[in-house]
Amino acid sequence: MDHEYFMKQAINKAGQALATGDVPIGAVVVRDGEIIAAACNEKERCGDALRHAELLALERAAAAIGDWRLSDCTLYVTLEPCPMCAGAIINARVGALVYGAADEKAGACGSVCNLFAMPLNHAPAVTRGVRERECAELLERFFETLR
Amino acid sequence: MDHEYFMKQAINKAGQALATGDVPIGAVVVRDGEIIAAACNEKERCGDALRHAELLALERAAAAIGDWRLSDCTLYVTLEPCPMCAGAIINARVGALVYGAADEKAGACGSVCNLFAMPLNHAPAVTRGVRERECAELLERFFETLR
Repeated sequence: MDHEYFMKQAINKAGQALATGDVPIGAVVVRDGEIIAAACNEKERCGDALRHAELLALERAAAAIGDWRLSDCTLYVTLEPCPMCAGAIINARVGALVYGAADEKAGACGSVCNLFAMPLNHAPAVTRGVRERECAELLERFFETLR
Repeated sequence: MDHEYFMKQAINKAGQALATGDVPIGAVVVRDGEIIAAACNEKERCGDALRHAELLALERAAAAIGDWRLSDCTLYVTLEPCPMCAGAIINARVGALVYGAADEKAGACGSVCNLFAMPLNHAPAVTRGVRERECAELLERFFETLR
């Protein structure tokens, strides 16, 4: 089980967002080789701009292990996290981040800015571009159907 | 009713965090001169690093008005928002932000960085330093008792 495998699970989760007209973004949190939390973007479903897949997955992971520190966890997400989610990764001390597609408009892990390069009190190890094409195509197809 | 009045309500809310050993930070969301949501930091209480006062207050505000867009709302918070909370303010399109004390270690509205000056898709109007001394003293007293 590797990055490709877990990103595939995040992609599967992303697909669930489509049922409620939400942008298809998915995330899973892995600890000791096991998925302990998963979520898709629920912004439209819940009418709450803060319900990004990453925030929900991290919240569920903390509940699952009973600790706010997620140092031994890896977050897999289909799209580069925005400032809110990158900040949540810092606050929860997430050990590692793996993402698929870059987000040129709102990405805070290297695209618009890189919060992990700032003098804040934590930065995860970052792996970019895992199943990048699949992650990006899911989004492209979604936005095409909106046009 | 003005900035001083609403910041006082955020300070009162901050005090509630002390009961659970949480860092005393409080927030209220105001719309049409009325407080529609309030929250204090619940990180330790809930064992979840994402339960900052701002995030909770914005979540409750969206639920209160039934819309994720908080363009006509003002968020009052005792401490300068961190990257996660500043990012949440952007995502929820919060119209205005008023904060008390600056956060030299994690503030993302001018101290460590300024997310609102980056080419993201929204930035609130910002007022800094309202009841700054009171907001800062609440935190100083809390950290002194920990020593």
